[in-house]
Amino acid sequence: MYKLLTKDGMAKRGEFETVHGTIQTPVFMNVGTVGAIKGAVSTDDLRTIGTQVELSNTYHLHVRTGDKLIKEFGGLHKFMGWDKPILTDSGGFQVFSLSGLRKIKEEGVYFQSHIDGHHIFMGPEESMQIQSNLGSTIAMAFDECPSSRADRTYIQNSVDRTTRWLERCKIKMKELNSLPDTVNPHQMLFGINQGGIFADIRVEHAKKIRELDLDGYAIGGLAVGETHEEMYHILDEVVPYLPEEKPTYLMGVGTPANIIEAVDRGVDFFDCVYPSRNGRHGHVYTHHGKLNLFNKKFELDPRPIEEGCQCPACRTYSRAYIRHLLKAKEMLGMRLCVLHNLYFYNHLMEEIRGAIEAHRYKEFKKTTLEGFLTPEEEYR
Amino acid sequence: MYKLLTKDGMAKRGEFETVHGTIQTPVFMNVGTVGAIKGAVSTDDLRTIGTQVELSNTYHLHVRTGDKLIKEFGGLHKFMGWDKPILTDSGGFQVFSLSGLRKIKEEGVYFQSHIDGHHIFMGPEESMQIQSNLGSTIAMAFDECPSSRADRTYIQNSVDRTTRWLERCKIKMKELNSLPDTVNPHQMLFGINQGGIFADIRVEHAKKIRELDLDGYAIGGLAVGETHEEMYHILDEVVPYLPEEKPTYLMGVGTPANIIEAVDRGVDFFDCVYPSRNGRHGHVYTHHGKLNLFNKKFELDPRPIEEGCQCPACRTYSRAYIRHLLKAKEMLGMRLCVLHNLYFYNHLMEEIRGAIEAHRYKEFKKTTLEGFLTPEEEYR
Ligand SMILES: [Zn+2]
Ligand SMILES: [Zn+2]
Repeated sequence: MYKLLTKDGMAKRGEFETVHGTIQTPVFMNVGTVGAIKGAVSTDDLRTIGTQVELSNTYHLHVRTGDKLIKEFGGLHKFMGWDKPILTDSGGFQVFSLSGLRKIKEEGVYFQSHIDGHHIFMGPEESMQIQSNLGSTIAMAFDECPSSRADRTYIQNSVDRTTRWLERCKIKMKELNSLPDTVNPHQMLFGINQGGIFADIRVEHAKKIRELDLDGYAIGGLAVGETHEEMYHILDEVVPYLPEEKPTYLMGVGTPANIIEAVDRGVDFFDCVYPSRNGRHGHVYTHHGKLNLFNKKFELDPRPIEEGCQCPACRTYSRAYIRHLLKAKEMLGMRLCVLHNLYFYNHLMEEIRGAIEAHRYKEFKKTTLEGFLTPEEEYR
Repeated sequence: MYKLLTKDGMAKRGEFETVHGTIQTPVFMNVGTVGAIKGAVSTDDLRTIGTQVELSNTYHLHVRTGDKLIKEFGGLHKFMGWDKPILTDSGGFQVFSLSGLRKIKEEGVYFQSHIDGHHIFMGPEESMQIQSNLGSTIAMAFDECPSSRADRTYIQNSVDRTTRWLERCKIKMKELNSLPDTVNPHQMLFGINQGGIFADIRVEHAKKIRELDLDGYAIGGLAVGETHEEMYHILDEVVPYLPEEKPTYLMGVGTPANIIEAVDRGVDFFDCVYPSRNGRHGHVYTHHGKLNLFNKKFELDPRPIEEGCQCPACRTYSRAYIRHLLKAKEMLGMRLCVLHNLYFYNHLMEEIRGAIEAHRYKEFKKTTLEGFLTPEEEYR
C-alpha cells in the first residue's frame, strides 16, 4: 500500500509497501529487458548500486525462454536471484513498436514474433496471464500506445478501448491471484493513462480509470516524439486528476532533468533505458552534464567519472582507463559506464527524496538543473 | 625471490616474493589482454575470485593506447587499479601469430600492426623498453616462438638467436631499471626455453640460459599443435635442467588436466586463455568435466554451475538462468561463466598447493583426473 509521507508543492515523497519489500519514492526503476540489465550487470550489482525496483519486459521474456518455463522454475524473482520488487510492463509497447505486422481488434492484438515471425495473439487476459506466470510484484495493464502522429479520432477510439481492456485486466488479475498455484498471489495492477497530447482526452480518461481503484496509475504514451514542454504541460493537466494517495508512474522517462521536472509535477515512479543505453556508448552522467568518454581529452585523465561518486566504477577506475577499455571494445568499459549511470540515477532519486523531505525541492531543482547546464566538461 | 617451501616428487610448492606482493605457487595467472580480462571482468572481480597474478599482453597494449601513455599515467598497475603482481609477455608471440607480414633479422622483427597496418620494429631492446614503460612486476624475454612445423635446422638457428636476444634483454633491463624515472625499478626478467619438440636442443638451451641467473625460467613454444604426450615428454626431459630454486613457468598451458600433469613434472607458473575464452562460449569447468550451458537439459536446472562453488556466479545464479542469458546474448551470461571458470582455475591451484604441502600429490592427481573423466553431466 502507498503511504504519502510528505509533499513539497506537488512533489510527493512516499512509501510503497509490497510483498517484496518497501519502495521509497520518488524511485527510478532499473530496466532489465530479458531479466538482466544490459551491460553485464547482475542482480548482485543492482544490490550494490542501490536499485530498489527492477523492471522486466514481458514481451521479451514471453518470446525468449518463456513465461511458462519461468513459472515452472518458481517465478522471475527466483530465476534472476532478486528478492526486491519487480515491475513488468504489459508487453503492449513492444508489440506496437517491434512487430511490423499487427492487427488491433477489440479482443487484443494479432502480431508476429520479431525473432522467428511466428503468429502471436496478445490481449488483456494474455498479458495478465504472462505477468502472473512471471510473478512480478507489479503488473502493468495491457494498453495501446498509439503513434505520436495519430489524430484525435484515432486517439479517442484507442483510449476508449484501453479503458475496456483495463477493466478486463482487473477481472483477469483477480482470477489469477486467487488460483492455488499462482506465483505471486499478491500481484498488484497499475492502470495506464493514455490520450497522446490531447489534455482533455487524458483528463477524462484519468477520471474514468481512477474509479477502478487500482494499486497505482501510470502515464503512458509520452516521451514518444513530443517536446519536453508538451510533456510537462500534459503532466500539469493530468496528474491532478490521478489519485494522490496512489503511486504516479511516468513511463519511459527520461533524462535527469525530465525526472526532476516531473517529480515537481507529482510523479514518483520512473523508468528509462537512457542510463544503460548511454553507458554502453561511453556516455556518462555527472552533476555537471554528460561526458563522452571516447573524447581524446580523457586519454590521461586520472579522475573518476565523477569526483566523490561511490559507484563501483568511480571507486577504483579512472576516466583514462575506462576510455581505453571502450576504445579497445572491452565489455568491461561498457559495464563500468552502465554501473556508474545507474548508480547516478539511483543516487539522484535519493537526493530528490531528501530535498522533498526537507521541503526545499524548488531550490534543489534550480541548483541541480543549473549544474547540468554548466558542465565541467562540455558534452561533445 | 623464490623460496622452495617443499616438494612432493617433482611437484614444487613455492613462494615468490615480488615488489607487488608474494605469489604462492603453483599459480595460475589470469590473462587480461589489453589490461582487462575479456568478459567484463574487472580487477575488483579478480580480487574476489582469488587471482594472484594478472597477465597483460605487451603487443596489444603497445598498439592500443600505447605503453608511453601508460607510463605517463604512472604504469599499468595504476592504470588498471591493480596492486598485485602483473606479468607482461614480450610481445613476441603476438608478433609471430597476428602479423601476416614479418621479417626476422638478427636485430629483431619487422612487421605490420594488425590494427592499421603501420610498420613496427620490435627487438629485445624494444620489448624491454615497452615492458619497462608498463612497469610490470615480471617481464618476459623477447624470443622467437617458431612454428610447430619448423624443421630441426630452423629450430636450432632460431634457438641460438633467442639465446643472443636473451643476453641483450638482460643488459637492456639492467639499464632501464637503473634510470631515475623508471616505473618499476625492481622489474624482474624471466628467460624462455625454446626448441620445439627436439628434447636435446631444449636441454642444451636450458643449460645455457640458466647460466644467466635470471629471476625465473619459462618453457615456451609448447601447446602449439603437438600432442599432450609430446608436451609431457618435453617437460620430463627439460625441467631437470632448469634451476629448481627459481620459478618454472609453462607458457600458455592449459586444460586443468595439463596443469595437474605439469605440476607433477616441476612446473609452478601457468597461464592460459581457456577459462575466459571457454566461458565466453558458455563452456564451464567442474570437477566432473566441462558443461556446455547451451545444452537444453539445463533449461530448468536450478543448480549452480558447480555445487559448493563459492564463485560470484554459483553463489547466486542457476544453470537455467545463465543458459537463458547466454541464449539471449546478454553479456551477463558470458561474464558469469568467465568468473566461474577463473575461480575454478584459481581454486584448483589452491587444491594443488594443499596436496603438495600434505605430500599426497600423486593421490590428488589420480582422483582429480578421474573426476574430470567421470562427468556428472557429459560434455556435448
Ligand atoms: Zn560513479
Ligand atoms: Zn562457480
